[in-house]
Amino acid sequence: MSNRTYAILGTGALGGFYGAKLQKSGLEVHYLLKSDYQQVRENGLIVESKDGDFTLSLVNAYNNVDKMPPCDVVIISLKTTQNQLLPDLLPPIVKDDGVVLVLQNGLDIEAEVAEIVNNVSIIGGLCFLCSNKVGPGHIHHLDYGQITLGEYKSNYQLTGITKKMREVSKDFENAGIPIEMLEDLLLGRWKKLVWNIPYNGLSVILDGRTDELMTDIHTRQLVESLMWEVVAGAKSTGRIIPESFIETMLDYTIRMKPYRTSMKIDFDEKRPLEVEAIFGNPLRKAELAGVNLQQIRCLYQQLKFLDMKNRS
Amino acid sequence: MSNRTYAILGTGALGGFYGAKLQKSGLEVHYLLKSDYQQVRENGLIVESKDGDFTLSLVNAYNNVDKMPPCDVVIISLKTTQNQLLPDLLPPIVKDDGVVLVLQNGLDIEAEVAEIVNNVSIIGGLCFLCSNKVGPGHIHHLDYGQITLGEYKSNYQLTGITKKMREVSKDFENAGIPIEMLEDLLLGRWKKLVWNIPYNGLSVILDGRTDELMTDIHTRQLVESLMWEVVAGAKSTGRIIPESFIETMLDYTIRMKPYRTSMKIDFDEKRPLEVEAIFGNPLRKAELAGVNLQQIRCLYQQLKFLDMKNRS
Repeated sequence: MSNRTYAILGTGALGGFYGAKLQKSGLEVHYLLKSDYQQVRENGLIVESKDGDFTLSLVNAYNNVDKMPPCDVVIISLKTTQNQLLPDLLPPIVKDDGVVLVLQNGLDIEAEVAEIVNNVSIIGGLCFLCSNKVGPGHIHHLDYGQITLGEYKSNYQLTGITKKMREVSKDFENAGIPIEMLEDLLLGRWKKLVWNIPYNGLSVILDGRTDELMTDIHTRQLVESLMWEVVAGAKSTGRIIPESFIETMLDYTIRMKPYRTSMKIDFDEKRPLEVEAIFGNPLRKAELAGVNLQQIRCLYQQLKFLDMKNRS
Repeated sequence: MSNRTYAILGTGALGGFYGAKLQKSGLEVHYLLKSDYQQVRENGLIVESKDGDFTLSLVNAYNNVDKMPPCDVVIISLKTTQNQLLPDLLPPIVKDDGVVLVLQNGLDIEAEVAEIVNNVSIIGGLCFLCSNKVGPGHIHHLDYGQITLGEYKSNYQLTGITKKMREVSKDFENAGIPIEMLEDLLLGRWKKLVWNIPYNGLSVILDGRTDELMTDIHTRQLVESLMWEVVAGAKSTGRIIPESFIETMLDYTIRMKPYRTSMKIDFDEKRPLEVEAIFGNPLRKAELAGVNLQQIRCLYQQLKFLDMKNRS
């Protein structure tokens, strides 16, 4: 087992789950909390999981990064809507030559992190995780959990499989989290957007579940048309998503149980939506490459309106 | 005064208002009714209007076109969502060499009418009317009332100002309804869509009033972008809307009182939406000319989904 130390920036349904799994496997983990701080410091973390429930009664809980030790790996598991906090939160807790693991949705977040910290490796991770926070320090893990990760280099240059990726992957796999390593992080991020853009967007705008969006012939067409725009966006940045991938995503969604997307859950809970990370950044990236993703732009502008109205 | 006889197909907030005004001016008017038939036959029509209230205690009310006499002018004032009834309703009540006046929203309705009746003149009218039905046979006219009309010839060929247009216009003007005559009906219909497509569509999809859509920077941009698509649609059919018209429509809307669009009212009342006339027909017309109106298509598909869900 490694002796790498981990910090969790944002101990919610996602960060709390992965942090607890890593700690349970024997690693030293430090958790940053906000509203749940007191509860978790006194009572630890509870994980109810389809893979087996467990409780960690002693956890290193903090409500301030200044009290945290610098760690080998910092996991960013905040929502991207909180990323304006990163310039304050990140530098104190990541070791020189350490790793920042960005477990967030969307595109171009790694570039923002690279502006904040030097002398670190930045790894982007796409999580396929179904978990909810059901109470303070209390996480319910319903399904999945695997992470697809790739290292970030300026402008998403290809990095191949790096040493740091292997090290982090090993820690996660020892903790029972399946990992897939990507040679091309940007391609991976665009591929995830093929699903996230249509379903997250339309579920909020139309108040629809995935099964409703797939049953109606018109939204079914709109979903596919949006997927093609994501493929065009990827292409504008030099990444080729094969046509068959769209069919795969459509079939996969048709076979899924009726699903309320994460953005719809945020909307229903009156939390800010990750519109910029999931819609705004891809739009702007494609636009810089001279490609106008018109239907995605339509969704982006609709979501910005709804997000603002929902919280005012 | 003329001795032209009028039939009103659809005696609601619009057809009831114009029919009553024509009858009050001395013309013979025959009204087709459905749910309000008994009430109107017994008690007539009540119009509360900003231009003066009036009651018509005796009206020619029918619940069946077979009992109606053929008339010189038939006004189609149903919602377009009822147009599947026209092949049954229209032929019995329009005289040979008569006029069908289509007071409906959207595009290409005149072409549908031309398939149903021959040996008639078809005139399309765009109504700028703010009125509600507040009870059976009881109409509240809040504002405006003017009609812009033009004659239809196969494929919207230009007709100039025709004799039939002048005759009908004269009857309306005698009844106190301001009329503008168009040499180019298709251009007039596209121009009305510059307003109707963004505001009707987004008001339903985003549950927003016109003022909210104009205050938010993102929907403000989306509105303008949709207007440009309408202009592109018009151009694809050979009609040029000047750029300045968009600025005029935006300014006009900003200065308007907060407004719930007619499509939003239909939606809130769980009535079918005029999605095909206002969105589907323009889309298909532009597509035939090789132009893909992508953001309008996005709205169209969203509205089809919402309309179906709203009534199920």
